[in-house]
Amino acid sequence: MYHTRRSLMRYLKNAWYVAALSSEVGPEDLFHRKLLGTNVLLYRKQNGDPVAMRDRCPHRFAPLHLGKRDGDQIVCHYHALKFDCTGQCTHNPHGSGNIPKAAKVPTYPLQEKYGFIWIWMGDEPADPTQLPDYSPLDNGPPTGIGYTHMHMNANYQLMIDNVMDLSHIDHVHGDAISTRGQLSPIIPEVKETERSVFARWEWKQTPPIFVLSHFLPDPQAEARHFFTVEWMPPANIQLSVGGAQGDTPFEQGIGAYDLHTCTPETEDSTHYFFATRRNHLEDDADFNAMKLKAMRDAFELEDGPIIQGVQEEMNGEEFFDLDPVLMSNDIASVKVRRNLLKLLEIEDSKTPQAETAKA
Amino acid sequence: MYHTRRSLMRYLKNAWYVAALSSEVGPEDLFHRKLLGTNVLLYRKQNGDPVAMRDRCPHRFAPLHLGKRDGDQIVCHYHALKFDCTGQCTHNPHGSGNIPKAAKVPTYPLQEKYGFIWIWMGDEPADPTQLPDYSPLDNGPPTGIGYTHMHMNANYQLMIDNVMDLSHIDHVHGDAISTRGQLSPIIPEVKETERSVFARWEWKQTPPIFVLSHFLPDPQAEARHFFTVEWMPPANIQLSVGGAQGDTPFEQGIGAYDLHTCTPETEDSTHYFFATRRNHLEDDADFNAMKLKAMRDAFELEDGPIIQGVQEEMNGEEFFDLDPVLMSNDIASVKVRRNLLKLLEIEDSKTPQAETAKA
Amino acid sequence: MYHTRRSLMRYLKNAWYVAALSSEVGPEDLFHRKLLGTNVLLYRKQNGDPVAMRDRCPHRFAPLHLGKRDGDQIVCHYHALKFDCTGQCTHNPHGSGNIPKAAKVPTYPLQEKYGFIWIWMGDEPADPTQLPDYSPLDNGPPTGIGYTHMHMNANYQLMIDNVMDLSHIDHVHGDAISTRGQLSPIIPEVKETERSVFARWEWKQTPPIFVLSHFLPDPQAEARHFFTVEWMPPANIQLSVGGAQGDTPFEQGIGAYDLHTCTPETEDSTHYFFATRRNHLEDDADFNAMKLKAMRDAFELEDGPIIQGVQEEMNGEEFFDLDPVLMSNDIASVKVRRNLLKLLEIEDSKTPQAETAKA
Repeated sequence: MYHTRRSLMRYLKNAWYVAALSSEVGPEDLFHRKLLGTNVLLYRKQNGDPVAMRDRCPHRFAPLHLGKRDGDQIVCHYHALKFDCTGQCTHNPHGSGNIPKAAKVPTYPLQEKYGFIWIWMGDEPADPTQLPDYSPLDNGPPTGIGYTHMHMNANYQLMIDNVMDLSHIDHVHGDAISTRGQLSPIIPEVKETERSVFARWEWKQTPPIFVLSHFLPDPQAEARHFFTVEWMPPANIQLSVGGAQGDTPFEQGIGAYDLHTCTPETEDSTHYFFATRRNHLEDDADFNAMKLKAMRDAFELEDGPIIQGVQEEMNGEEFFDLDPVLMSNDIASVKVRRNLLKLLEIEDSKTPQAETAKA
Repeated sequence: MYHTRRSLMRYLKNAWYVAALSSEVGPEDLFHRKLLGTNVLLYRKQNGDPVAMRDRCPHRFAPLHLGKRDGDQIVCHYHALKFDCTGQCTHNPHGSGNIPKAAKVPTYPLQEKYGFIWIWMGDEPADPTQLPDYSPLDNGPPTGIGYTHMHMNANYQLMIDNVMDLSHIDHVHGDAISTRGQLSPIIPEVKETERSVFARWEWKQTPPIFVLSHFLPDPQAEARHFFTVEWMPPANIQLSVGGAQGDTPFEQGIGAYDLHTCTPETEDSTHYFFATRRNHLEDDADFNAMKLKAMRDAFELEDGPIIQGVQEEMNGEEFFDLDPVLMSNDIASVKVRRNLLKLLEIEDSKTPQAETAKA
Repeated sequence: MYHTRRSLMRYLKNAWYVAALSSEVGPEDLFHRKLLGTNVLLYRKQNGDPVAMRDRCPHRFAPLHLGKRDGDQIVCHYHALKFDCTGQCTHNPHGSGNIPKAAKVPTYPLQEKYGFIWIWMGDEPADPTQLPDYSPLDNGPPTGIGYTHMHMNANYQLMIDNVMDLSHIDHVHGDAISTRGQLSPIIPEVKETERSVFARWEWKQTPPIFVLSHFLPDPQAEARHFFTVEWMPPANIQLSVGGAQGDTPFEQGIGAYDLHTCTPETEDSTHYFFATRRNHLEDDADFNAMKLKAMRDAFELEDGPIIQGVQEEMNGEEFFDLDPVLMSNDIASVKVRRNLLKLLEIEDSKTPQAETAKA
């Protein structure tokens, strides 16, 4: 019992998580956010490269984001210790100015890719190759992609459950993405590798999904559709949706490629990041803004109350301990939960016992 | 120490509690309320009969009150599982539509009587005979009775203490129900049975209690008065108040019959339900509304701050552990606390150890 | 580990703390405040002497501040038990009026001195001589002194750290008290006795500290300055600041004498009391009010966010357990922390084990 609960409470540490949208950290900002239970300071060097360090001065533990910039360095607001972007203290205005050896702030490796700043907060060396390829986000004009950050009062795994099981969309969401009941009966094709879970639904409907229909040759005629979702650790899901009519292959059809990625703020709250790129009306900034707002509203106003209600009902207990009644539509999301549990156990087994006790 | 505290933390499970006023659950409502620490969904079948089930889908734990009605059935908002009013899943729109054997929501026996919906949330079979007879509430026109629900941030036993010891009324409440100091010196007649505690105060005062005086023959002359309170488990108190002048017996006097009944929401908060029927001006709807408002205000604005202050001062500790200084006016309320502790111990002794540990 | 944490969680009990400003407790008031985790009622007898007792009736634990005055006595609002200012129950309106032997409210010794009401909440006999001499606060007209109370969401030791290490003022505060960088490089003279820690900084600057400069002979010319701080247990710091020009000795210069004193409300929140007397413009009530407001704003708006940020970052852990990087400017505040830990250990060693376990 205790063991299972501990598993729930944790998240993978040695992994790339999104710390912020690239657009959230402006050139002059001292941006801060709680990630994996730790307050993190994010800022940009004068050359634009992002820096992340613990948002806490090693002297008397003042939040560094209350301080100020000095070139690429940060000056603590409390006693003006200065730190460079490796976290090293470079100036102590007190007494003789001697800099104690321990005067160092932990920093975190970053990668800025695909419109996000990705952070590695684990103790193992950061492995850049563990960040999957999300380059489809980069393929197209800026007016063809939307990014957003949402805060959810729920464990991050509930968000993953939601996206990995698209059978909910006809029930939770409105007409804009309704499959008119076609999706639920489908048992998706599910594939699993050591570090991914993939699911694909394919069906026909008349008329096509509303958000795609107006870009298809005949908005009232039957269309073929697909959804794919692919989870990779720790909490990234690529989602593709498409529609085509007649003999047009999906590759030449109308569709979108989205990334849903979650970063635990705490065990009970999550930073939910989302990007969506489409292959139609790519130069229309107004349509882009409208589409992003509609999707964000769907997550926050339609999925949000349900997921946060589930969080409250689960009351901090481990999902499998509560004996959920699982069905065919849960295959992909359950595979993700089991895969994640395995990765957590592996990470746990590498952690010295003393460390675990301390944490 | 641990044992005592556990006792405080609990409430009887195998008992009838009020879940809602009858008027709170309309024909189309998916009403929900936390009772004994569990979220409960309440709704009415098309024939008007009330239904109660756990407000949580057994699939992925979404709150069922977010869903919708389908005749007498409930459709979960998350993945559209449908449940009948026995809690049995009757429709699964996913995959082959197979309904897992475990797809069942716990339901709770109800009785709708005396203007309340009563619920039995324990594991033992519901025993309808354990609901006492409160039929005096039914005797008279609807304009002669008022019902209300209040929420209190205090353990339910503090509300029982309050009503079982009416010696507080001259000190806490205003002139409307003042006994002009007559009540406090009286040591009430107290009777106890295995499942009840009864107390009666009787006295004379001039002028009579204000709320009754205008209905007595001479509003300025001396009147005989009585109060009776009778507690029955788990948390029901019948209260009668009366006044008479001259040779008129109390039975032919002016008075009211009230039911105070509490349902723990959590260990620290309570749903406080109240009904009051009078035998005078029974057809006056305006007077009825005014009287109910005045009584509700007395509970919320006069008793409320004191009781919630006591809750804060007790800080989750067991009443007897705090060594209260008890006096003659505490006889009835202390008897209720001891009786309740005994019933809790009996219930506890029937619960398998594993269950207790889990709870 | 457990032991260290316990140390942090505590505060000295057998010590004089400020319960309130003298001005906060008016002649008719039933003032209440949580001090050292306990709710305390404060009021004045008809002769003006202050009284402090636990804000909780021993009968059913109602907060006494909800009650009313009867001469020098307090009547509980719930059941009208009356208590004199020794906490003894003097009247019971119930039944035969018998007063149970245990019907007594704990009272706390007080001293009203220097514009504050000081309280002793420990079990050992109050020792009036342990209240240090802060009589400089009394030397001058009322328009030459300002008093204030602030509430801080932080452990009281973080406030002491702040005042004992004045090296922060050039970094945290604005131009009004800037030393133009002169202060930080100075390693203060620090003296320690068994029950005090003293630090003194002395330096020259041009122009002088702004808040003093206009009262010096030449507001633009160099001045000699000093700061002294002296901590005494549990949480009192006398602070003196002065400036002089030419051959004028500090004793004849311009300056102020302040008392900073903290009373833990809980382990994580503090009542921060402050008094400041100056030796210039002593009869100017408007200047007095303006100066007090400016200082209060500095504490609340400039120190406050940093200290409360530190509190959040420390997350309830013991300061030394977090391995702070200490520097020359920390000498005095670290000596205070170590002195306080020693006093806490002494107090702890006198407490019977059973008591400790209970607490």
